[in-house]
Amino acid sequence: MSQNKFWYQCVDCGIEYDAKSIIYLCIECSKHNSANNPPKGVLKVHYDYNNLKGIDLITEYKAHNNNLLPLLPIYNIQSLGTLQVGNTPLYQFNKLSGSTSINLFFKDESHNPTYSLKDRASSMVSAFAKEHNINQIITASTGNAGSSLAGICASQNQEAIVLLPKSAPKAKLIQSAMYGAKLIPVNGTYDDCLTLSKQISDELGIYNRNTAYNPITIEGKKTISFELYSNFKGKLPDYIFVPVGDGCIISGLYKGFEDLLKLKLIEKIPTIVAVQAKGSAGIINNLETESFTLVASKTVADSIQVDVPQNFYMTRNFISQYKGATITVSDMEILEASSILSRNTGLFTEPASAAAFAGFINLQKQSIIDSKVTCLILLTGSGLKDSSSYSQQIKTNYSVEVDISEIKKLLV
Amino acid sequence: MSQNKFWYQCVDCGIEYDAKSIIYLCIECSKHNSANNPPKGVLKVHYDYNNLKGIDLITEYKAHNNNLLPLLPIYNIQSLGTLQVGNTPLYQFNKLSGSTSINLFFKDESHNPTYSLKDRASSMVSAFAKEHNINQIITASTGNAGSSLAGICASQNQEAIVLLPKSAPKAKLIQSAMYGAKLIPVNGTYDDCLTLSKQISDELGIYNRNTAYNPITIEGKKTISFELYSNFKGKLPDYIFVPVGDGCIISGLYKGFEDLLKLKLIEKIPTIVAVQAKGSAGIINNLETESFTLVASKTVADSIQVDVPQNFYMTRNFISQYKGATITVSDMEILEASSILSRNTGLFTEPASAAAFAGFINLQKQSIIDSKVTCLILLTGSGLKDSSSYSQQIKTNYSVEVDISEIKKLLV
Repeated sequence: MSQNKFWYQCVDCGIEYDAKSIIYLCIECSKHNSANNPPKGVLKVHYDYNNLKGIDLITEYKAHNNNLLPLLPIYNIQSLGTLQVGNTPLYQFNKLSGSTSINLFFKDESHNPTYSLKDRASSMVSAFAKEHNINQIITASTGNAGSSLAGICASQNQEAIVLLPKSAPKAKLIQSAMYGAKLIPVNGTYDDCLTLSKQISDELGIYNRNTAYNPITIEGKKTISFELYSNFKGKLPDYIFVPVGDGCIISGLYKGFEDLLKLKLIEKIPTIVAVQAKGSAGIINNLETESFTLVASKTVADSIQVDVPQNFYMTRNFISQYKGATITVSDMEILEASSILSRNTGLFTEPASAAAFAGFINLQKQSIIDSKVTCLILLTGSGLKDSSSYSQQIKTNYSVEVDISEIKKLLV
Repeated sequence: MSQNKFWYQCVDCGIEYDAKSIIYLCIECSKHNSANNPPKGVLKVHYDYNNLKGIDLITEYKAHNNNLLPLLPIYNIQSLGTLQVGNTPLYQFNKLSGSTSINLFFKDESHNPTYSLKDRASSMVSAFAKEHNINQIITASTGNAGSSLAGICASQNQEAIVLLPKSAPKAKLIQSAMYGAKLIPVNGTYDDCLTLSKQISDELGIYNRNTAYNPITIEGKKTISFELYSNFKGKLPDYIFVPVGDGCIISGLYKGFEDLLKLKLIEKIPTIVAVQAKGSAGIINNLETESFTLVASKTVADSIQVDVPQNFYMTRNFISQYKGATITVSDMEILEASSILSRNTGLFTEPASAAAFAGFINLQKQSIIDSKVTCLILLTGSGLKDSSSYSQQIKTNYSVEVDISEIKKLLV
């Protein structure tokens, strides 16, 4: 491996760490972290942007199978493995039922290998581990992060270990289990699993994928921004709507655009609209507060239901620095948006993704967004991941007899 | 619309029908069809192959967003709509656990818009309907065909109507319902739904998507062959393993290759291996028989569980004409294969797709396939579609206490 091309910087105190050894949080800032508060000391990856300015990044991008290797924390694109991560469909649907015409785009991240955007993080973490000769990766998760790590590790001949509360519904685990992950149900909470996974990493040297904790996850998620830059040929949408839970996906999006900004490839970062469920708005509710107030979360949008947002401070910095917008939406708005989306586009997303679209609908109704702007909705995962959330909306408690005249009545 | 560029021919009696009006089955041959026997009179679409021989099809293909318009029953590629159907990932995994090295490819059709290969048929039917100014499409289905029709119609601003037995589990219907399909639960069997849907088409002029019944479905499914021809730059694999239920996917595959053969773009059709579940082997068990013997089907592979294979006669003709191979696999082999696949590749497929891989494993164990050949496994749909099939395999009925020493014991 050549000299390290990147280093880490603490988003809270600014201390820098070189990348020679594996590090998760800033040693100083993380000293007083507790489970009831968002962790301090999350690290951000920096590159030698000045030296990169001369590089023709678009040519680089195409040369490396749509990867911007100089801006990734790995040295060899082959390390990313076989599965096609990214290169997901971008769709334009200008006129949805009930809305006025607008330049409206959807990025369908459900067409990653394990059917969610999380594969961008998992594949980067997996590649990083490979380049450091590590073969076991652990995470605490009951959802997309766990199944994503499991699937990517399976394809890379690595072992995934997933800690989860034993109360997690079995249906959520089938995908991870099928990929051969070592699932360890813990007689405790999700926070217990988080803590245990970090201890395991410390004591056994097993690489840790926990989002926000591991700075490489953001470097994986940021590739969505490079891809959008390529999809839109540099002319990015005015607004990008993103579902927010822990704040890692939105931070990844910001980080990718920030990289491009530092290289002067873009002049400004689009207005990123952070959308949270009203019942799980830990980031938005604490944007202006001195100390974090924990509220138990509850929302139909499972993937963004979070009590303590693990990437709170980085997200808050980004939103503040790049003048992001925020909106919270109710569960009813989320379910309505998911229905409007699926009925008008054929895109079937999990409720978290529908939340982003609900945010758009809400701002459009308030005429905050007009017909002249271009909007993009980030759809982060497939509706098949969590289809039971929708079962209350489906009414099939009637039936007709085997009689064509009965059916005809329903069709006229 | 210009003059019709294609016509129909009955696969049983050879009578030809022009394409001026919408037609489903051969009028003569279908007269004595009954629910207990595969339908006679399925029609095959023919083009003026002699006139097409001069055309540079590869250039055509690229010019029309990877569509071979001269060989499709539509006149305008735009009719296919917005969603990206096809262009699915092709993966090579030469060495899977427990198997010797071989040139082994997987075509992951779960990355179609509604997560199954059926979208190839639905989008062609939808485009055909659009070009005939028809706005309602009906099908009988409890599974992938229904959700695929629903999703594609949603994206095309058409109405999908899905008839299903009222006994169908709600979980299977959520996706279709979310797309806004009109779901009509019928107090009867799947066969009743099939019959009713055909009556509805006859009496109300609603276009019918039932597979095999509507000859356009095969024309949609055949695009997988064109795509493989493009993926492999004309050098097709020696063996292609395909899960078989009604026989429509395999017939689509044959039909696409037959088109290419007639145009002399390929010299021979690969050996297509039809894989059926032992508990639902209506096609393979009746390949040599004079009259069809109906056996009630039962298999874990829901998507290929079929009592009366609707495309029996066309499939039998193809297998016979192009010297196809056949194999049946047990449910245990299917579940084992799905596990081997997911653990070694990160590909999570529904049991029907795993059946195709089980067929490959079986033939390899028998040394019928050696290391010199190239094989492709057609993965037709996502494991998320039917993940409950796998729940028996997942053992999470243990848990550990919140104690790092307990977890360490599990990891050494």
